[in-house]
Amino acid sequence: MAMVCLSDFEAYAKKYLPKIAWDFFAAGADDCSTRDENILAYKRIRFRPRILRDVSMMDIRTKLLGTEISFPVGIAPTGFHQLAWPDGEKSTARAAKAMNTCYIASTYSTCTLEEISAAAPGGFRWFQLYTYRNRAVSQRLVQQAEALGFQGLVLTADLPYTGKRRDDVRNGFRLPPHMKLKNLEGAFEVCTMSFLDPSVTWNDIYWLRSLTHLPIIIKGILTKEDAELAVRHGVQGIVVSNHGGRQLDGGPATIDALVEVVEAVQGRVEVYLDGGIRKGSDVLKALALGAKCVFIGRPALWGLAYKGEEGLRDVLGILQDEFRLSMALAGCANVSEIGRHLVQFPRL
Amino acid sequence: MAMVCLSDFEAYAKKYLPKIAWDFFAAGADDCSTRDENILAYKRIRFRPRILRDVSMMDIRTKLLGTEISFPVGIAPTGFHQLAWPDGEKSTARAAKAMNTCYIASTYSTCTLEEISAAAPGGFRWFQLYTYRNRAVSQRLVQQAEALGFQGLVLTADLPYTGKRRDDVRNGFRLPPHMKLKNLEGAFEVCTMSFLDPSVTWNDIYWLRSLTHLPIIIKGILTKEDAELAVRHGVQGIVVSNHGGRQLDGGPATIDALVEVVEAVQGRVEVYLDGGIRKGSDVLKALALGAKCVFIGRPALWGLAYKGEEGLRDVLGILQDEFRLSMALAGCANVSEIGRHLVQFPRL
Amino acid sequence: MAMVCLSDFEAYAKKYLPKIAWDFFAAGADDCSTRDENILAYKRIRFRPRILRDVSMMDIRTKLLGTEISFPVGIAPTGFHQLAWPDGEKSTARAAKAMNTCYIASTYSTCTLEEISAAAPGGFRWFQLYTYRNRAVSQRLVQQAEALGFQGLVLTADLPYTGKRRDDVRNGFRLPPHMKLKNLEGAFEVCTMSFLDPSVTWNDIYWLRSLTHLPIIIKGILTKEDAELAVRHGVQGIVVSNHGGRQLDGGPATIDALVEVVEAVQGRVEVYLDGGIRKGSDVLKALALGAKCVFIGRPALWGLAYKGEEGLRDVLGILQDEFRLSMALAGCANVSEIGRHLVQFPRL
Amino acid sequence: MAMVCLSDFEAYAKKYLPKIAWDFFAAGADDCSTRDENILAYKRIRFRPRILRDVSMMDIRTKLLGTEISFPVGIAPTGFHQLAWPDGEKSTARAAKAMNTCYIASTYSTCTLEEISAAAPGGFRWFQLYTYRNRAVSQRLVQQAEALGFQGLVLTADLPYTGKRRDDVRNGFRLPPHMKLKNLEGAFEVCTMSFLDPSVTWNDIYWLRSLTHLPIIIKGILTKEDAELAVRHGVQGIVVSNHGGRQLDGGPATIDALVEVVEAVQGRVEVYLDGGIRKGSDVLKALALGAKCVFIGRPALWGLAYKGEEGLRDVLGILQDEFRLSMALAGCANVSEIGRHLVQFPRL
Repeated sequence: MAMVCLSDFEAYAKKYLPKIAWDFFAAGADDCSTRDENILAYKRIRFRPRILRDVSMMDIRTKLLGTEISFPVGIAPTGFHQLAWPDGEKSTARAAKAMNTCYIASTYSTCTLEEISAAAPGGFRWFQLYTYRNRAVSQRLVQQAEALGFQGLVLTADLPYTGKRRDDVRNGFRLPPHMKLKNLEGAFEVCTMSFLDPSVTWNDIYWLRSLTHLPIIIKGILTKEDAELAVRHGVQGIVVSNHGGRQLDGGPATIDALVEVVEAVQGRVEVYLDGGIRKGSDVLKALALGAKCVFIGRPALWGLAYKGEEGLRDVLGILQDEFRLSMALAGCANVSEIGRHLVQFPRL
Repeated sequence: MAMVCLSDFEAYAKKYLPKIAWDFFAAGADDCSTRDENILAYKRIRFRPRILRDVSMMDIRTKLLGTEISFPVGIAPTGFHQLAWPDGEKSTARAAKAMNTCYIASTYSTCTLEEISAAAPGGFRWFQLYTYRNRAVSQRLVQQAEALGFQGLVLTADLPYTGKRRDDVRNGFRLPPHMKLKNLEGAFEVCTMSFLDPSVTWNDIYWLRSLTHLPIIIKGILTKEDAELAVRHGVQGIVVSNHGGRQLDGGPATIDALVEVVEAVQGRVEVYLDGGIRKGSDVLKALALGAKCVFIGRPALWGLAYKGEEGLRDVLGILQDEFRLSMALAGCANVSEIGRHLVQFPRL
Repeated sequence: MAMVCLSDFEAYAKKYLPKIAWDFFAAGADDCSTRDENILAYKRIRFRPRILRDVSMMDIRTKLLGTEISFPVGIAPTGFHQLAWPDGEKSTARAAKAMNTCYIASTYSTCTLEEISAAAPGGFRWFQLYTYRNRAVSQRLVQQAEALGFQGLVLTADLPYTGKRRDDVRNGFRLPPHMKLKNLEGAFEVCTMSFLDPSVTWNDIYWLRSLTHLPIIIKGILTKEDAELAVRHGVQGIVVSNHGGRQLDGGPATIDALVEVVEAVQGRVEVYLDGGIRKGSDVLKALALGAKCVFIGRPALWGLAYKGEEGLRDVLGILQDEFRLSMALAGCANVSEIGRHLVQFPRL
Repeated sequence: MAMVCLSDFEAYAKKYLPKIAWDFFAAGADDCSTRDENILAYKRIRFRPRILRDVSMMDIRTKLLGTEISFPVGIAPTGFHQLAWPDGEKSTARAAKAMNTCYIASTYSTCTLEEISAAAPGGFRWFQLYTYRNRAVSQRLVQQAEALGFQGLVLTADLPYTGKRRDDVRNGFRLPPHMKLKNLEGAFEVCTMSFLDPSVTWNDIYWLRSLTHLPIIIKGILTKEDAELAVRHGVQGIVVSNHGGRQLDGGPATIDALVEVVEAVQGRVEVYLDGGIRKGSDVLKALALGAKCVFIGRPALWGLAYKGEEGLRDVLGILQDEFRLSMALAGCANVSEIGRHLVQFPRL
């Protein structure tokens, strides 16, 4: 089976993963409208490609908060990588490093942060965290991440409670006994996420700031109002995200929300996006609409499910090639030439 | 079979109800466009969810004309509950009381108002009525309802004649011989609805007002013009409704009509809605667009068909959980925080 | 098989007519986009129904150029009725008279005008004509129709050449040997329509006017420009029509074109419509948008195919009942109450 | 099997061509959205047909840069015609000459330019070229074409790199050993297109101009900005093209882009279009929106696959008949009467 595009990896994962694991990764909340909209929305955006521009020397590198990556696609935080591949997040870390991009490790990793760090020393990584009722748990994780060389903290802000994913309820989803949320072991019982703190507010950004010197990126923003609040509370970056459509069903596609967030932010902080990226041209659309970088969630898991580190490198390599080609065909030789003029946005 | 969402109850009812009963409950007029639009219209409305708001203490209660209910979902008036469950409306009344919400009992109940009252003493109930050529029949029913402690009168105003529901014509639908429209027994022969009075006008609101001290809620309004007339004629509430798409096919989805009605009413009376509610997030959308409360019709019947009172409690419980979760994920801790800012409405 | 709505007659005709006849009646030009749009366009128009209006006394009569008909649905000119029923246009004439409506007899009838007249003496009929290269043929037909008591002339203006209907080409469609275009017998060979005159212009309206005292109705107008020209050239009526989607594929649905024609005409002449009428509510939409009356083409043929005169009476009876009910449910007791306020038109 | 419309030729080709050849001709980039949009976009454009205009004398001829053709449809440059028919481009040349229209011969022909010229002496032909890293190759081809009587040069400007066509990757597409890119033989190894020069810019138009007296037409323009640049750089014509959807997926349908290009050009140079033409009415729409002529790509290959020269003549003949008929039914007797008033364009 030739792996030509990301859909091939999706088909592979659907075929070979245990149903309960596939369902968990694929799940969206309720009717999965938002999950599906994340993808459909790209199809409504049209390029305005330019021709006869010298695209012989392509440079697709960009920087995330000053750190260079090979192309503007990183790994979004997703949990339970051992469900996809025995080595779990260690393979993810190795692939990200090999491809010279950023990996946002999830709190819900099935490897410890130490294991992740040791697997790919010197890799560019951020650490994703939730806020727990027991703030000491969050504090310990933040300080551990900083000590291990993680270069940013990504606060997931759209999960005061877990969304309703029907298949997980039907399947009675839980981690197999031999897998652990190792970063939380001993902290508390976490099979359910009931230790999440739904009372978190913007003031907790100040608390988080007090714990660390790392830049703080806030994930889950979908409106201009919250984008403005994020900037005012001193974050360094924003991830426009709807948690892959797994939280509130009926919210906007992230590529649609990006436009309003970018307009509100006006360049004061970097804006990223996750959700729905399936082709290099999707990346180009997101950048044209103002994202500095995008992050892939499910496609990374499909890559792991295919061949672990190698599979994820394949996925990233395909996206890299497609992105470079799309840029060239749109008439851009480097990322600074990508702009709003490159796309026509539909009226909503 | 796990009952995870309302569609599961729908599938159950379709499988286990006699076809003629399923067809009757499911029927829409003509091509069923309006029935189906009631549902599709919700999918076109997008949330603008807010994050990092303290949603640790969720309060989803609201009040209908001053009476508190546990959450803003009541039971719409539908007929012939014995077609769904042997105990009929008695089970409905018990479930509504158990879940602490409002039940609008239909004139076309297969139990008497006394039986309904006795089944769940002290429950919060309104009585739905039509206007008959023989006004004495309506008068008797109104006074009986008031005497039995019903707290409101819901006048259905969109049925001067019965809509054309093709399957009912094909099936030759009529009540089985052992079921009776008990509230109309002796009044006249009612297998057909030919005793409905199509000459009713706004002036009949004054006549109805003269019969009772109960608040009058008018059901079936879809335009700003009629909303204005309703307010001027002194009603206490409006149900935006197209009779579940069973009357005039080609009319608007109720969620679409809600916007124009709410704008016209400007808070002078309470505005409710029925039609198309299938998820907790639908309730949230309706409230964001100005409804004080919504009412469920067919889903209540599916609940009855599943397990009578218990099945209907299950349906209401699922909606309650979903509504609470949607509110929290949208950043609202109580219903007063829900507003127009929470949704993006499509251009029509 | 219960005949509940027009689709039932369509299904019957499709099942029982010879394929070549069904294909001929069903045919649209090229991809059949316009044929199908004629129907789809109705689904995009929404009613704004009004309630609590006295609809106890329904009056659905209207007048065509001063002649009363029982309701605003007539029979559009279609050819070759013997393909649908042995008695052909004689049955059509009888059904139209029985239902007290207007029948536009086609030049391409398989009965003579005399036979049609004799079959239903005193019926309200118009005569449809094309313009032939040999003007004497047209002249003879016009004068014959006038002599026989036809009350109007409908000039079909959208057929300088016959549209390309792929199935007719594939089937090698032609009339069976025992059927004749009796009104043209002897005039010339007419199996093909090659005797049509594609050089006809607006000036030919004056020529037609010189031949007859009958009112002239022009059929095939789809733009405001041509509507204005029609009024200026002194016609008495306009049929907004795209020939059932059988001529230029890619033109507008007639209900969409109606709006611009009605605005241009400003009441100076009567405007009618054919194409896509399948339900009583479609008739109501057309009247709300300014049509004085609509005409049915294919549904009349399905009625004939079902049971000749009786089948066509059934079709008309169903439309009449549905139209009356739709009017009542929209809050109109007679046709003069129908207006633009009754519908919401989509943005195109 | 009756060949009634172009879809019949498509079905034939799909059935009888080797899969690898069919896939190559059918391929679009990535998800094939742009390829499919090319066709779908026509369906959104509606005619505003005019009636009662004298269309007895139809004249469908037009001129390309002063040279008359029988109707405004030419043959777009596509490669590898021997994959469709043994005689390859020789048959194409003969059919184009027989139908008196323009054939744009591709650099990637499987016959030499000499063979093409000799096959149909005196035919109206343009030569399509790419720009190679080795400019001498381009120069040789240009001068050879001019010497052979080609009357125009079409510079393809949307292929700095080849688009990603998934099926070709899966099939490992390459020319069969017995076919050659004869015009490039000896120049370099060209199985891959890696000798294309992605550094080409607008200045290279001046270089090309220095090589030849032939008019230069630039193919691949999709924006008003590039249309303006093309005019300023002195080209004689523009082909609005997205390479049949084979290059950047996600770009606009050519018929949609045509509008903005025509507005920018304001008649200073001729504007043509390729992509998505499947019916005579598509040609009429393109002309109504400002194209001087359209070119067919895949349909020409289907014609070849059917019966070589004869098959392509059939395809052109059908388009010609359909175009003439559409014009007449829209009320135009010659191409100068076709204009913007003839169509209603959807809001995007």
